Amino acid sequence: MIRNVAIIGLGLLGGSIGLALRERAPGIATTGFDANPNVRDVAGERGLVGTVCDTPADAVREADLVILCVPVGAMGEAAAAIAEALPEGAIVSDVGSSKQSVSEMLAEALPGRAIIPAHPVAGTEQSGPEAGFASLFTNRWCILTPPKDADQDAIEAVSGFWAALGARVEIMDAEHHDLVLAVTSHIPHLIAYTIVGTASDLEDVTRSEVIKYSAGGFRDFTRIAASDPVMWRDVFLNNKSAVLEMLGRFTEDLTALQRAIRSGDGDTLHDLFTRTRAIRRQVIEEGQDDERPDFGRDH
Amino acid sequence: MIRNVAIIGLGLLGGSIGLALRERAPGIATTGFDANPNVRDVAGERGLVGTVCDTPADAVREADLVILCVPVGAMGEAAAAIAEALPEGAIVSDVGSSKQSVSEMLAEALPGRAIIPAHPVAGTEQSGPEAGFASLFTNRWCILTPPKDADQDAIEAVSGFWAALGARVEIMDAEHHDLVLAVTSHIPHLIAYTIVGTASDLEDVTRSEVIKYSAGGFRDFTRIAASDPVMWRDVFLNNKSAVLEMLGRFTEDLTALQRAIRSGDGDTLHDLFTRTRAIRRQVIEEGQDDERPDFGRDH
Repeated sequence: MIRNVAIIGLGLLGGSIGLALRERAPGIATTGFDANPNVRDVAGERGLVGTVCDTPADAVREADLVILCVPVGAMGEAAAAIAEALPEGAIVSDVGSSKQSVSEMLAEALPGRAIIPAHPVAGTEQSGPEAGFASLFTNRWCILTPPKDADQDAIEAVSGFWAALGARVEIMDAEHHDLVLAVTSHIPHLIAYTIVGTASDLEDVTRSEVIKYSAGGFRDFTRIAASDPVMWRDVFLNNKSAVLEMLGRFTEDLTALQRAIRSGDGDTLHDLFTRTRAIRRQVIEEGQDDERPDFGRDH
Repeated sequence: MIRNVAIIGLGLLGGSIGLALRERAPGIATTGFDANPNVRDVAGERGLVGTVCDTPADAVREADLVILCVPVGAMGEAAAAIAEALPEGAIVSDVGSSKQSVSEMLAEALPGRAIIPAHPVAGTEQSGPEAGFASLFTNRWCILTPPKDADQDAIEAVSGFWAALGARVEIMDAEHHDLVLAVTSHIPHLIAYTIVGTASDLEDVTRSEVIKYSAGGFRDFTRIAASDPVMWRDVFLNNKSAVLEMLGRFTEDLTALQRAIRSGDGDTLHDLFTRTRAIRRQVIEEGQDDERPDFGRDH
């Protein structure tokens, strides 16, 4: 049974885990640490965890479960910083968006420990200790990627933990996770960042025009492109092969549409635009988006 | 002064204009027509216009202002269908998303008439006569692209009309409009349609996985890719050169990011991801999007 949870990194994800635990599992004691002292101060003020500690070692000393909530590029360092103080039998997990590289980093920094990597597929464009909220994980999926030799009890403990936070849990291998998330998350972010960059660098269309007329579709991309720069830099550097593979598929398909536009092939366009409509309906039926038009934006 | 408005096409845009007029300018009489009899029935039930007519000619017979709210590929035909019955001095406008091609179609079908093409930059992913609502244009921009020899009074009448519906009005030439909207609306739609198509056609990732884990970013794209297929087919066929031009810029930038990922160049990624954040802030400051995290989606 998990009684003491340590959260390392108190931004959007770490903070939301703390707040969700306070609301849904008040019997679990929480400690937390963040490398940034200002973040620790805000975490204390907002009560993101029961006790904000001054070192990662202090935060994990009593923990049954440690969750690393730092950018994926910082996971190895964060794991190394808790290695000495980690109690015997404690489970280490994380919330990183790429799983093969993180699994390797954690295994290297914490040899012989119970490591159950995890990825809750949830977030907003906001980041930092002010951004978290208790319902972030409600009805979202959390993917666990336990190594082949992982302890079954540890897997069940982490599954039960995420279910207690309101999430639905799925287990898959890290390689497949990285491919799936490349297409459902990483490539969407990459193309959003790209088009927002492209639009703001044009000579013949001013930035002011881009912003004024953004309600035509562009503004949606600006939300995603406002996501945390360090987190996303690390995702692309750490899920390189799956991202490049999926980017290749996307570019092929975009080239085919470009050809259809150039040649005036309206049927190809109409066929695709009809098929994609069905996907939206399924996303809503599966409870993965707001069914109200325009995400329920204020009009 | 505009006293009688005829709306040809009673989908999302036409219906929203009718509802906005009823709410904000109840002194203006409205008539409407849609080629689809089922749409006419719903329009009558919802009261989208005061009188639903059985022919386009009947709808425009008393009009001071006619607004064509049909897909841009159907504008020429819609204009031809009202030519005979159009009262002398009536102004003809539209809501099409591409302006050079529409301007040409209208000028050809209605020689010697007062034509003031317009494009309200507003919409949702929904379409049809059930989709419209009175506040769709509030605080959105409506771009007029009057021909060089347009009558100043006609321009002012259409400007005043859109201001009365709650929109902010800008005037520019049709060619520039088409370039600006290619980047703020058409390319965002094209890449959303593309990635949703790519994701649903993969062999190694199932469609069910794509839908389950769509909250990682993909779901945003499914909303845009649920937009009306005929409308968007016509936009791409009718704004071909600007779309291909902007698509070229986008592809160049995407290729540069691809290279940065492949070579592990984190600084290039971080620099871009930091710059794009500022654009989001400006979009919100300009009142062009909901400032709440995640568009105010329910969590």
